[in-house]
Order: sequence, then structure tokens, then C-alpha cells
Amino acid sequence: MKINDNYLKLSDSYLFSTIAKKVREHTAANPEQEVIRLGIGDVTLPLAPVVVRAMKNAVSEMGSADTFRGYGEEQGCAFLRQAVCGYYAKKDVALRDDEVFIGDGAKSDLGNILDIFSPDNKVLIPDPVYPVYVDTNIMAGRKITYISGNAGNGFLPMPDKNTKADIIYLCSPNNPTGAVYNRDQLAQWVEYAIANDAVILFDSAYEIFVRDKALPTSIYQVEGSRQCAIEICSLSKTAGFTGTRCGYTVVPHELVRGGTALNALWLRRQTTKFNGVPYIVQRGAQAVFTDEGLVQAGHNIDYYLKNARIIAETLTELGVWFTGGKNAPYIWLECPGGMSSWEFFDYLLKKAGVAGTPGAGFGTNGEGYFRLTAFGGRENVIAAMERIRGLMK
Amino acid sequence: MKINDNYLKLSDSYLFSTIAKKVREHTAANPEQEVIRLGIGDVTLPLAPVVVRAMKNAVSEMGSADTFRGYGEEQGCAFLRQAVCGYYAKKDVALRDDEVFIGDGAKSDLGNILDIFSPDNKVLIPDPVYPVYVDTNIMAGRKITYISGNAGNGFLPMPDKNTKADIIYLCSPNNPTGAVYNRDQLAQWVEYAIANDAVILFDSAYEIFVRDKALPTSIYQVEGSRQCAIEICSLSKTAGFTGTRCGYTVVPHELVRGGTALNALWLRRQTTKFNGVPYIVQRGAQAVFTDEGLVQAGHNIDYYLKNARIIAETLTELGVWFTGGKNAPYIWLECPGGMSSWEFFDYLLKKAGVAGTPGAGFGTNGEGYFRLTAFGGRENVIAAMERIRGLMK
Repeated sequence: MKINDNYLKLSDSYLFSTIAKKVREHTAANPEQEVIRLGIGDVTLPLAPVVVRAMKNAVSEMGSADTFRGYGEEQGCAFLRQAVCGYYAKKDVALRDDEVFIGDGAKSDLGNILDIFSPDNKVLIPDPVYPVYVDTNIMAGRKITYISGNAGNGFLPMPDKNTKADIIYLCSPNNPTGAVYNRDQLAQWVEYAIANDAVILFDSAYEIFVRDKALPTSIYQVEGSRQCAIEICSLSKTAGFTGTRCGYTVVPHELVRGGTALNALWLRRQTTKFNGVPYIVQRGAQAVFTDEGLVQAGHNIDYYLKNARIIAETLTELGVWFTGGKNAPYIWLECPGGMSSWEFFDYLLKKAGVAGTPGAGFGTNGEGYFRLTAFGGRENVIAAMERIRGLMK
Repeated sequence: MKINDNYLKLSDSYLFSTIAKKVREHTAANPEQEVIRLGIGDVTLPLAPVVVRAMKNAVSEMGSADTFRGYGEEQGCAFLRQAVCGYYAKKDVALRDDEVFIGDGAKSDLGNILDIFSPDNKVLIPDPVYPVYVDTNIMAGRKITYISGNAGNGFLPMPDKNTKADIIYLCSPNNPTGAVYNRDQLAQWVEYAIANDAVILFDSAYEIFVRDKALPTSIYQVEGSRQCAIEICSLSKTAGFTGTRCGYTVVPHELVRGGTALNALWLRRQTTKFNGVPYIVQRGAQAVFTDEGLVQAGHNIDYYLKNARIIAETLTELGVWFTGGKNAPYIWLECPGGMSSWEFFDYLLKKAGVAGTPGAGFGTNGEGYFRLTAFGGRENVIAAMERIRGLMK
């Protein structure tokens, strides 16, 4: 028996365990000071009332012989796929409901979608980036080329005609940088993908944070994208579903490679290796996309965006360079005084009792940068900014 | 861009769509007769009250700031992994909670577990069988050897020392045959796997139907199995979770191949490509494993097993050869009069208005056999048996 030895090429990430250890040690040495965590990438506000109501009703249905539901369609209940289409219609994007696949979150779909591609494809991944893009391709033995996000391009790398790629990852609004591509930039990526016969995997998990009407919230707002892009999104950040688990992947019918429709391949993957999202959760997700649901979910997004604004204003006042902080829940800042990511982490923790995330954890180009997130409680955000202002002014 | 062209080697299954079409046509031609479906592989009884209560409480928790839950551990909440360990303790099987991985069902885990194995491994699959074992390996380009289940071995194929294999699928109680391996037979498989350095993927999705105390309900009841077996189970049939989605996979620490612990590989796969089962569903699953939950779930199993007994008694009375019908929700019968699977399907539908599943849909060796299931309503089962008795006596 042979294991998949690509797994042995994965490097272990000690990022979050190292952060936890350092925070523990600091707390033990300074029991009087409460550490404020602004590194957390998880939502903190509860599910919207309309979602709670829908899920309670669905639980009741499952408990009654008349309304009990067994196996559903692997690609998701029609009512939810249609609700997603309705949400896209508001973005002026027309989707057919058989182009929408309901899944248990962007992380799962981003990993599983690679099943339909040959291991021989060459992959283009921005650096810094959400580490899952890299690890899932290493697991399949694919060759990865990194493209540089840096202060010069505002952490929004653009295509290079001299670099050949088959699969391209784009994440906008970006994790970890909070940077958002505009339409013209996405159009350049679409043009490049079509010229290279490549496929873009567009991670739009943070699209709900985009409030600037000029910025795209879906790659399908760019012409030509239906021929070259798969869009993967999640309700994790949109509606606080990190512990409730629901997302969706869009595979347009025009996306054909080697004479085969990728929609048919993904349908085959999901019907063979997946059995759908819990009915109860799908009813909760449907409620998110109602008018009432979008208003209620929007209140939470307002809250997080105001946190982001408070952080961004503080950094601006202090003269610190950063991306994100508007249209995104992340703030990506240049470590002051030429400090490395970890040096700044230690400095901020020891001098101000604030914990963030060292940028080096997201790739080579993250060195010298630092991620703060807007998912904390308001009081903590304000208190953390006061501490940072006191330290760095 | 190259697709994974192994997908092009998959044969489309028209089994259930052909059945549906034939039933539709029959119903249109015979509107006065209601067709009774005994082909259904899905549960029909609602979730147990204790599960409904636990899930409603969990939904409330998610709606309140004080008790809201975000990301959980990818491998499942500790409370549920410990509950599974408690369930195994009742089978006299000692598991550590980090050997249990909570997933969204056996179909997902059976597909995803293959990620950790090289595509070069040779796979041994019984015929007839649950088609997912075959398709998931074709997708990865693995070479499959089939082992024959037949009337001679009671559809319980045993290892052949002259056949070399790396990955072995066993399903007991079996889908579609309802046959159950005894301890001695499983011990022979364990011995064979160890001699071949192979891994057994043991699908125990129907273990709850085993009422004969002499029969094993887990491969870990057989000595040596912790060195060679992964066990995959689901609450789909145990507790009616087909639409609620929760299962678990056990990877013992002693299972090491090429110097690597498979537990660590599966943990890495799940933490990279999965984000856990919904908290709400995990609370429902935890309730299944309480004393009250097992009693309530047991009532549903009693009901299905009585259906199976009614079918088995009718077939015995008619002198029809079959496997299953006790310790399993499936009855696998030899088509009378030398009819083929589809001939018998048409005969039963046209003459008695009863729809089952042609055995040929589960593999070459299924030809000439037919599957009936015990998941229907009692009145329908009794009425179907009366019709069959009238037809075949």
C-alpha cells in the first residue's frame, strides 16, 4: 500500500499555534492586562433572527412524519439554488439554477473542485494568500507559480503575459490583504485566462463587504468570465455561517475545456462524493437571501465595517501604510520601523497587549506586514486602537 | 488546461432514472393501481424527539451572542467524538477520541479518504456493491479488481491468497445484498490485509440493524484490525440522518503505512479541505448516542426490521432464494424462473404494481438478482407482499 506521498511535501503550519503559545506566555507573565485579539478570522455576531426562525421550522419539519426529508439533491435544494440566482440577479448577473452548486463552505469546495482537473496543470497563486490554495495543490502534486503581491501593486498582482498558467486563483476582497480588484483589473485577468485556455478560481467569500458600487462583487460582472471562471462563495462571513456551514460554487455552462463542460464534471464529482448540505442548514441559508435576511445580515456587516474603519482611521492618523479596511474585514499594514512580521507581533503583544497575525504566515511576500481583522467586539477594537495609538504616536 | 480525464472513463448510471421512467409509464397506463415502491434506499421515519430537541436548542444557541459558535474543530466537536467512543465502548471496542473524525456522511468520507492514498494502489471491490466504491476509484485512475459475491458464497466473498491488493472494500451488513460477515470471516480478511500490507475500508453504515449478538458490528471487534482497517459509518440509517448529514470515520493510531500514520494524513486532509459538520447537526448527533436517543432510534430500526421480516417470510413461503432480511434492511433475492434483473423488474411492476431495484445495477454479479428494501411504510410492505404472493404462488 502506498500513501499519497505528496502529503509529505506539505509544510506544517505553526502560525496559529505559535500565536496562541505567545499569547499564553504573555498572559501568564502579565495577569493584570487583558490581551485583545485582533487576529481572529472568525465572526462573532450571532445568526440573524430570520435564519434562526427558518432553521427551527426546518428542525420541526424533520421531526414530523408528514414533513420529514431524506436525501436531497447532492447539488442542493432547488429553493436555495434559485435564491442564489436571485441574489446574483441583484448584481446584474444572470445565472441558471443548474449552474449553482450548494456546498458546505468555500474551504471544502476550493479543495474538492481540484478533483476535476489533471494533476499536470500549472497553478498560479498570488503571494500572500489564504494557505488552502497552496496546500490543496501540493496534495495533488501540481506545480505552483507564485505571483507577487506587494506595496507597489497594492497587493493586487496583475497577469504577466510571459507566464503560462492553467489554473489561476484570485481572491477579492482579498484574505489576508483586504485589497479589492476593480473591474478593469478583473477584465485583464479574464483576458489572460482566455488567452491561456486557463480557468480562474474566483474566491468571493468576502464580497458582502464591498460597499463601493464601482467595485465588482462577482467575476461574472466582467465580460467573458463565463468562458473562464468558477466562482466560489460562502455564507460564513456573509451571514455568520462559520459554524453553520453553507456555501456555493458557480460553474457556468459556457466553461468548456478539452470539449468537456466543467459543469458536468463538477456535478459528477458532487453526486459521487457528496450527499448535499443538511436540509435544516439550506433552509437557514435560503432565509439569508430574503429581503429581511439581507437587511439583518447587513447590520452585522455594518458593524464589522465600522470596526474596520476605526482601525483604518487609527493607522492613517499614525502614518502607517496599509491596504484594506474598507470594502473588506481585513487591514494589512506595513510593520513600522522595518520590523519583521514576528518582531512586530512581539512588540505589539508586549507593549500594547494586542495580538494580530504576522503577515509571513500567508507567504514569503507577507514578511514585513501584519494582518488585523474587524471581527472583534466594538469595545475591544476601540481599546486596542487606544493602546496602539499610545504606543506608536 | 487539462481536465481529469479519468472522469471520462466513468459510465453513466441510468439505473434509478430508468426505474422512475418505467414506473411513470406503468402508472400512466394503469391509473387505477397505486405502484408500491420497495426499491427506495432512503429512510422514511422522522428524526427522534431527543434529536429534534437537541437541534432546536443548538439553533437557539447560534442565535444568541452569549452562546454563538463560529468555526469548530474540522475533525468534529470533542463532545461528539467522545459520544462515538462511548458508543463503541458498548461494542467492547476502545477508541481514543482523536481516532474519530466527524464528517457529513459515509459517501463523502468514502470518497475523500482516497485522497490520502496513491493512485498506484490496486483496489479490491466485491461485486455486487454500492457503486460509489467503484466510481471514486475510477476518478483517481486506480486499477480495480472485482471479487465475486454469488449464491455459492452467500454474497460474502472471501480473500484469495493469489490476488494481491492494496485497498480492500468491505461493507457489512452489505448494500445491496443484506449479507453479514461473521467474526471468523472478518478475521480472515484482516489476516489477508496484514499479509498484503493492505488497508481495509470497512463500511459499517448498516451496523445498527445487526441484532444477532454473535455477529460483529465493527471490524474493530476482530483482533489485528487496528493495524489494517479504517471504519466508516453514518447516522443516515442509524438515526434517519439521510437529509441531516452526519457520519464518522475511525482511523486507529496503529494504522501506519510506509512509516506514516494514516491518522495524521486524514487529519491533514480534513483540516485542509473540510471545515467540520454544522454545530447544530453535531448536537443532534450527540443526542442519538445518549441512552434515550439509542432507545428512540432503536424503535425506528425495529420498525424497518419488522418490514424486512415480513418480506423475508413471504419469500421463504414462496420458495425464493434470498440473502439479507435479518440484521439488515435489504433483501436480495434470486429472480424466479431464470428471469434477468430487468425482466423480473418489468414482471413485478406490470403484474403486481411493485417496484424494486434490478440487481444488475450493482455490478455484473447482480444480474439475475433483485433488491427489495425495508424502508417503506408497514401497510405498503404488507400490501406488496400480498400482491407478490398472489402473483408467484
